[in-house]
Amino acid sequence: MENFQILHQDQQTQARCGVYKTHHGEFKTPVFMPVGTQATVKSMQPEQLKQLGAQIILSNTYHLYLRPGHQLIKKLGGLHNFMNWQGPILTDSGGYQVFSLAKMQKVTQEGVKFQSHLDGSYHLLTPELAIEVQEALGSDIMMVLDECLPYPSEKNATLKSMEITLNWEERCLQARTRQDCDLFAIVQGGMYTDLRKICTQRLLEIHEKGTQNSLSKFQGFAVGGVSVGEPIELGYEMVACVTPLLPKELPRYVMGVGYPEDIITCIGYGVDMFDCVIPTRCARHGLLFTPQGKLYIRRAEFSEDSKPIDEKCSCYTCQNYSRAYLRHLSLSKEILSAILNTIHNLHYYFNLLEQARLAIIEQRFSEFKKSFFSLYQK
Amino acid sequence: MENFQILHQDQQTQARCGVYKTHHGEFKTPVFMPVGTQATVKSMQPEQLKQLGAQIILSNTYHLYLRPGHQLIKKLGGLHNFMNWQGPILTDSGGYQVFSLAKMQKVTQEGVKFQSHLDGSYHLLTPELAIEVQEALGSDIMMVLDECLPYPSEKNATLKSMEITLNWEERCLQARTRQDCDLFAIVQGGMYTDLRKICTQRLLEIHEKGTQNSLSKFQGFAVGGVSVGEPIELGYEMVACVTPLLPKELPRYVMGVGYPEDIITCIGYGVDMFDCVIPTRCARHGLLFTPQGKLYIRRAEFSEDSKPIDEKCSCYTCQNYSRAYLRHLSLSKEILSAILNTIHNLHYYFNLLEQARLAIIEQRFSEFKKSFFSLYQK
Repeated sequence: MENFQILHQDQQTQARCGVYKTHHGEFKTPVFMPVGTQATVKSMQPEQLKQLGAQIILSNTYHLYLRPGHQLIKKLGGLHNFMNWQGPILTDSGGYQVFSLAKMQKVTQEGVKFQSHLDGSYHLLTPELAIEVQEALGSDIMMVLDECLPYPSEKNATLKSMEITLNWEERCLQARTRQDCDLFAIVQGGMYTDLRKICTQRLLEIHEKGTQNSLSKFQGFAVGGVSVGEPIELGYEMVACVTPLLPKELPRYVMGVGYPEDIITCIGYGVDMFDCVIPTRCARHGLLFTPQGKLYIRRAEFSEDSKPIDEKCSCYTCQNYSRAYLRHLSLSKEILSAILNTIHNLHYYFNLLEQARLAIIEQRFSEFKKSFFSLYQK
Repeated sequence: MENFQILHQDQQTQARCGVYKTHHGEFKTPVFMPVGTQATVKSMQPEQLKQLGAQIILSNTYHLYLRPGHQLIKKLGGLHNFMNWQGPILTDSGGYQVFSLAKMQKVTQEGVKFQSHLDGSYHLLTPELAIEVQEALGSDIMMVLDECLPYPSEKNATLKSMEITLNWEERCLQARTRQDCDLFAIVQGGMYTDLRKICTQRLLEIHEKGTQNSLSKFQGFAVGGVSVGEPIELGYEMVACVTPLLPKELPRYVMGVGYPEDIITCIGYGVDMFDCVIPTRCARHGLLFTPQGKLYIRRAEFSEDSKPIDEKCSCYTCQNYSRAYLRHLSLSKEILSAILNTIHNLHYYFNLLEQARLAIIEQRFSEFKKSFFSLYQK
């Protein structure tokens, strides 16, 4: 049985749509996964997420490993039960956060040593531990441990890092024990297209060595190491050079991307899955998304504005609250500001992906993309 | 037409229950009003409040006058529309916050000069302005402007302050223009029972001078200046010496009270209305209410506890989340912690008041009170 099924392939671009089946239900692609770092998508109750159209959420292994600990979550019935979310969950491997949040990190072939950003305690994250933690959480889709380099990084360092990552990925495959926890590979290679291609090729070799037993194969491929501070066009180039090399029948996931325009662009490259903190984090800072672009709700011009964020938006926030009230809440740092803004931004993202999906089904994705960019001001 | 109707009077205590009609619907007493300082009950959507059983909310004139401004709220259709709460709203006069939050304050017969805690700007709050602001907000129940002294205060100072407050209260009556905005008097007099009695008597004289025209009469009486740091028994004494002197047919409101045990005690003295930040503020700090008393969710003993806060509680939080998860959220300072804890605490408060009301109707309030105190550990 295949987890992923492609339902439509756009003829003019590489865009496609499909459906992915997990042990906690299925999700339709292209899909946007909101980020629930510490076992909660910030400011949202799980029922609200579901009502807004969230099909799958992402949670962070690094955070949950440190607090409250994966063994504790396992004891309490796994992450789904712990956080009261019964839909699919994808977890990252912890690698990205080790490199962005931990106090120090030292990479060896064995794994990465780091100091917790919470209490300064020392830890060693190995590929084997990354799998152990994610299996303890009961993640539907686990990610391999990878080293995520900053931008810019020199080619030699990138190559060396890629070799370590490839070793870790193979060990992640070997460490798996749970048939109900899928595993995605991650293509690294920094901002070098030749390294990206080599990395992809090597991962495919590892994948193809696998037997029919799903534990020895990857269930999807991700592009990592983009959205790390590079000019966005460079990131796009990395995605565009990798996706044509990936197996058509498996899902493709670009990690940590992004703004609406990035997502629409990458869908055109044949990417199926996205995650990013942007809609939720921006909401907490008063930055709201509309078909015309971003709207900063704290601006003085909105102080007496009785209109909703977006007059054509059907979300709960736009149906019930004025820009003036939302501005007041944001300036007053009220919790309701985070809630109402998050509802709007997630609604915007989920609706955008749904529109993209419909456009693919109806063979008009290029027009859809053109229409999106003609309206949307970056 | 009377706004307030008493439906049951307990025979053994002064406890009673009734119903109060406003232009935004009615509420049953005894009632607890959650506090929505800045035009939002912190972390709650209005629909959640309603679902939890909130019948009337309190909002703070001081905060709304300073930000976003009462004229702005009036222009946007009043406070109910602004914050999307269509039930009754009671507003305080701003006096209490001027004395507790403003950078400086100077009381004269005319009013109180103060400096905003937000930007240091100077303002003069007079009785006339307090009414103007509350009418602009469209409050269903307005409060007179009073001076709220700290504890302890000397008797002479308390007497002098009381005289100023009485003058302000009379001027508040005269300043009213809206028939749909009720006005409650406030009994002051510090911690001196003789001053409390004199103040009550003088307010009744002002009230009785009023014609049938409701603008020249008070629609209810409040006891102010308690819960200002005094030993709680002293506060109870002030409430107990005032309530027997108040008109039986009008509602009685003790401002800023309090903990569950305070509310149950004051209901026995014949008090009908309460407000306090305790359930919402405590929720944000991890302090939860149960029939057995307070539970501090951050304690290590709850780290692996799969039980809900209270196994007999029917609230959304207790039906769906473990103590271990709530502890994790609280320690992680997640917004969902404030939301779930607030849901539980407000559910507890509304349910407690509903139980008290039922006990009064069934002529068993004394037993109810005894049973409450036998279980509840302060």
